[in-house]
Amino acid sequence: MKQVSVVGASGYSGEELVRLLLNHPEIELAAVTSRQYAGQTLGQVFPKFAHHPRSRKLRFSEPNAEVLARQTQVVFLALPHGVAAEYAVPLLRGGAQVIDLSADFRVKNPEVYREFYAHEHPAPELLPQAVYGLPEIHRSQIRKSPLVASPGCYPTSILLPTIPLLRSGLIKATGIIADSLSGVSGAGRKAEMDYLFVECNESVRPYGVPKHRHLSEIEQELSLAAGASVTIQFTPHLIPINRGILTTLYLAPAEHFSNGVRMSDLAGQITACYQAAYGNEPFVRLLDGKALPDTENVEGTNVIEIAWRLDPRTGRLVVMSALDNLVKGASGQAIQSMNLICGFPETAGLL
Amino acid sequence: MKQVSVVGASGYSGEELVRLLLNHPEIELAAVTSRQYAGQTLGQVFPKFAHHPRSRKLRFSEPNAEVLARQTQVVFLALPHGVAAEYAVPLLRGGAQVIDLSADFRVKNPEVYREFYAHEHPAPELLPQAVYGLPEIHRSQIRKSPLVASPGCYPTSILLPTIPLLRSGLIKATGIIADSLSGVSGAGRKAEMDYLFVECNESVRPYGVPKHRHLSEIEQELSLAAGASVTIQFTPHLIPINRGILTTLYLAPAEHFSNGVRMSDLAGQITACYQAAYGNEPFVRLLDGKALPDTENVEGTNVIEIAWRLDPRTGRLVVMSALDNLVKGASGQAIQSMNLICGFPETAGLL
Amino acid sequence: MKQVSVVGASGYSGEELVRLLLNHPEIELAAVTSRQYAGQTLGQVFPKFAHHPRSRKLRFSEPNAEVLARQTQVVFLALPHGVAAEYAVPLLRGGAQVIDLSADFRVKNPEVYREFYAHEHPAPELLPQAVYGLPEIHRSQIRKSPLVASPGCYPTSILLPTIPLLRSGLIKATGIIADSLSGVSGAGRKAEMDYLFVECNESVRPYGVPKHRHLSEIEQELSLAAGASVTIQFTPHLIPINRGILTTLYLAPAEHFSNGVRMSDLAGQITACYQAAYGNEPFVRLLDGKALPDTENVEGTNVIEIAWRLDPRTGRLVVMSALDNLVKGASGQAIQSMNLICGFPETAGLL
Amino acid sequence: MKQVSVVGASGYSGEELVRLLLNHPEIELAAVTSRQYAGQTLGQVFPKFAHHPRSRKLRFSEPNAEVLARQTQVVFLALPHGVAAEYAVPLLRGGAQVIDLSADFRVKNPEVYREFYAHEHPAPELLPQAVYGLPEIHRSQIRKSPLVASPGCYPTSILLPTIPLLRSGLIKATGIIADSLSGVSGAGRKAEMDYLFVECNESVRPYGVPKHRHLSEIEQELSLAAGASVTIQFTPHLIPINRGILTTLYLAPAEHFSNGVRMSDLAGQITACYQAAYGNEPFVRLLDGKALPDTENVEGTNVIEIAWRLDPRTGRLVVMSALDNLVKGASGQAIQSMNLICGFPETAGLL
Repeated sequence: MKQVSVVGASGYSGEELVRLLLNHPEIELAAVTSRQYAGQTLGQVFPKFAHHPRSRKLRFSEPNAEVLARQTQVVFLALPHGVAAEYAVPLLRGGAQVIDLSADFRVKNPEVYREFYAHEHPAPELLPQAVYGLPEIHRSQIRKSPLVASPGCYPTSILLPTIPLLRSGLIKATGIIADSLSGVSGAGRKAEMDYLFVECNESVRPYGVPKHRHLSEIEQELSLAAGASVTIQFTPHLIPINRGILTTLYLAPAEHFSNGVRMSDLAGQITACYQAAYGNEPFVRLLDGKALPDTENVEGTNVIEIAWRLDPRTGRLVVMSALDNLVKGASGQAIQSMNLICGFPETAGLL
Repeated sequence: MKQVSVVGASGYSGEELVRLLLNHPEIELAAVTSRQYAGQTLGQVFPKFAHHPRSRKLRFSEPNAEVLARQTQVVFLALPHGVAAEYAVPLLRGGAQVIDLSADFRVKNPEVYREFYAHEHPAPELLPQAVYGLPEIHRSQIRKSPLVASPGCYPTSILLPTIPLLRSGLIKATGIIADSLSGVSGAGRKAEMDYLFVECNESVRPYGVPKHRHLSEIEQELSLAAGASVTIQFTPHLIPINRGILTTLYLAPAEHFSNGVRMSDLAGQITACYQAAYGNEPFVRLLDGKALPDTENVEGTNVIEIAWRLDPRTGRLVVMSALDNLVKGASGQAIQSMNLICGFPETAGLL
Repeated sequence: MKQVSVVGASGYSGEELVRLLLNHPEIELAAVTSRQYAGQTLGQVFPKFAHHPRSRKLRFSEPNAEVLARQTQVVFLALPHGVAAEYAVPLLRGGAQVIDLSADFRVKNPEVYREFYAHEHPAPELLPQAVYGLPEIHRSQIRKSPLVASPGCYPTSILLPTIPLLRSGLIKATGIIADSLSGVSGAGRKAEMDYLFVECNESVRPYGVPKHRHLSEIEQELSLAAGASVTIQFTPHLIPINRGILTTLYLAPAEHFSNGVRMSDLAGQITACYQAAYGNEPFVRLLDGKALPDTENVEGTNVIEIAWRLDPRTGRLVVMSALDNLVKGASGQAIQSMNLICGFPETAGLL
Repeated sequence: MKQVSVVGASGYSGEELVRLLLNHPEIELAAVTSRQYAGQTLGQVFPKFAHHPRSRKLRFSEPNAEVLARQTQVVFLALPHGVAAEYAVPLLRGGAQVIDLSADFRVKNPEVYREFYAHEHPAPELLPQAVYGLPEIHRSQIRKSPLVASPGCYPTSILLPTIPLLRSGLIKATGIIADSLSGVSGAGRKAEMDYLFVECNESVRPYGVPKHRHLSEIEQELSLAAGASVTIQFTPHLIPINRGILTTLYLAPAEHFSNGVRMSDLAGQITACYQAAYGNEPFVRLLDGKALPDTENVEGTNVIEIAWRLDPRTGRLVVMSALDNLVKGASGQAIQSMNLICGFPETAGLL
């Protein structure tokens, strides 16, 4: 059994990592850290895990990279950006496998990082060895990387539906629009007015328009897929659910589909493209018939649902996706990467 | 005091009409009809109105157009499409002022009506005298029309932000995308599985993609504003709130703004355009500074909030609006039309 | 027009006072204060009021008791306990009518206050002139009091259903149990973890068991009604709604009803008792038939719903009430007191 | 691997049985039945299970007791009362182990059944062999019973906290009050107005007062524990959450604790009593310190949380419990019984 630790286990992503790792058949959750809760048992901090046998023995500790690197083979970082990179350096030096859920190693270009995160990158020397942890896209690189930059929730909901279409040239790389709706846990466990029950309940609102931080990693990965620089329009909205992201993508078929004859081929080619990309993926659910994505159907799972419609009236392709922002959008996906790296079945602990 | 009646007062829009009309200073709510509740008092059917003095006296009756036309000067129809038109005929013949909240008289072209509503128009001879009841756009025609076709909730949230931009030529009439989020009351008071609490709570889902019925009236009004045929992309989503619509519009600035110099003018022209159109409108709130629309801020009111952002990265204009689907999106707007027709202050009963 | 001010207008009760006072026909809202928002207009701080004509002119100011006493005849205090009393002293000295929504003047005995609020009473000399502002119970005293201590939300939901039964001797004064469910706005607008959306949504929990602060005022008023010292059991729960309190009361019929014959009289006597007490009250809705209270039916209104059932199996009387914690449980009730004091119709601004 | 089937798998309890059984390590889910969905795969009916390997192979079938008895060793009945008993007869005759989630075999006395369920018991001859399936209370009888009557959600939340206190004589058997709050899934998947999102959201309401059907089984089991006939007061409330029951119990310490000295012993005896009863139970979480039950902490788990407070002011004992109505209150508890019967670890598939 591999020994695994979670640094910053008191936030929503950290808590979800704990939930999933407690039931993972191939590893032992050996350490959880939190400045705030150091000394308390897992069951005291999270009563919902208190019936699990390990919850009484496992105590939160102060985060200490050297100790963690000695005692555990895999370390998940569930920390704010900026802070995560500081822990990654000694952990990697100590030989640990690092899976970082922050934004620190997602963006390859430190100048783009500074533009979007408003501070210098804390450890640019590590960027070359980091892999963007989207298993369906970068599976082979993840397998051999000591440092996985696990993607954000919005990016996952946008990238997985879009990359196969871009790679196959079925859609234009320009004019992409992503309209996303996120549950409140996406804002993290923070005592701020904006996220109070009374302020969120019966409220729906856009925010971070038009330049959300996640654009930096989204456009990096879309550009990679398109083989050209991609700039997209992205509007996140906050909606009153605990978990879930629903993204609606507005895409334009590639130029050569514009006349009527070729348009009729397009539907078949999209089906084939998604089948080739995801037909065998355990965590991508391609909906057929009249089904459309629903966050309720993915809650608590590592699944992303994808459906699409070609609109004959506008000639546009509308693609919709749903995922659980804390699982496929964060902790589940990070564990999927661990499974790849450690040679476990990719679905271990995630079905 | 004008005598006013509501036909079909047991649905959500009908109930909201009752709420607003009970407190309207210039009229008396003289009749409410409902097959299901005929004979019961207003207070028995809707306990929430039971403390209002009129709620004990006012009893639901069977809907009878002849009687209503005799007893009341203004009749609101809160009925399903198809049924509304059947009542409108005898009501107009009887001399009543009709304000219809259904879709029956919104679409001028009966063939478009048949295409979108899948049945023949029940009273095409009335279409010429019907006015699309968007007061900010058709105020003067509404004032003198015996038959107002009060707009739907999605259309209002899309039309009010878009029409001034189209009229002034600031945006292209092509490529318009409207992404809308609606509370569950938008589906009406219907005992269907899809709208059960457990099925809606913690769920977000698109539906009716890509050809929702409301497109017929939206495109009719946008085409009128653009002076050219307009086809738009529209994606409605269901979200777990009782009331509210949040629409995000993706628009392209007109061709002549494409170079850098002219782009810098655009922001000023948009501001001026909206100011000219809505600066004095009592129910349009143009947000400034960092404010963005929030359904919570319009709940229970007849207000639509509008904000916009020019995205320098994409060159696109993103406009966002919020309204209460049962007030500005239905019953409040219908009363606003009544106020115009009857010569009351336009805000009477709506502040 | 009387000039009215609200001190501490940025909390939920203060905001609700503003909403109701803006539409009150007999007064003008002349001043709103808030340390945090001083200098901003009402419409900037609360966009939901921005369509009201007064919202652009009215600016938040720093709270200054001397100024307020000079400029306004009625001052509402929507401040934390302890702080409210400090403002009341100079306001009363300045000749203002004070309606305090805090707990500071509700409890007559300063030692009980210290026991429940854990600090010395800041102005015990004012206690003799304060009246507990429950209009249905203390109407005549309220009319002539310069200082109204407006009741809390839980107390109102418990006292109104219980006092008539105690006064008439129909129930025992011992063994009373009140089980209450409150929406999250009852906790105030505070950036605390416990009240985050994600922590409250899909959560139901008791708190403050067994000695909640509101017991002090509840038992004072029940004792007054019973003519004997009353100690009750009270369990508040937090539930995921914005507004509303639902209270279920478990009461024992008085001793002389214990045998079968007298029990059969009891139902009639309860009906008569409630009719006598509340039959003409505009804000008390006595439900009949099969109807039971529902917070949805009182949302946004100053109404309390009351229903009761005699259980032949247990011999116990179960009484249930529902009210909006921010209206009848706070701001609406405070305005009802103002109406009494100023000689306005009691329902002015509250229907 | 034991073969297991679920009859009536399309309701909320049936769906939850499927969720849990799909991941149970010791059995194979061999058949699911539903008149409505016969012929469709599990993944088509419940997209949320579609990523599970079995969901494509398993198709809903028409319920046929003879076939099920031949093909599966354990049959769960998730059917309405009345209907369940009809299936139980041929299933038992065919040699299947039956675990019934309906009320049909919970009440031992067919006359009490008729009183509360308003029809004759459909199979009174089976009642003697049925065991009330509360594992913590009737573990040894469950192990050898061919017919388990799995308890309802409210009863579980009331019985587990109360039975040890009654058995040990620490509380009086009279005057027990149970005040319960239930999520909407407790009403079942039924297309009824009362359970629409808009009708439940922002609403809290009591119902079924004062004689709810569950009283029959609750009082049967409490009487058994007390060795005397017990009649309780029970008030259920509907609250806007998907899952969860929170019960607050008002209990009176036994007579001999009434004087001050003995009262001080009581706390210790209650602690000891609960420890003896549940200290080693995997699914009973006795909260200590300041912790109080919260439905959020048990969502999706088979755990019941219990906390209690002795109120020195009233001398009363307040006990609070929380569970997930679909897991410990229905499907999880039924699987716990299956584990006992089949000799699996009691927690198999439930941690």
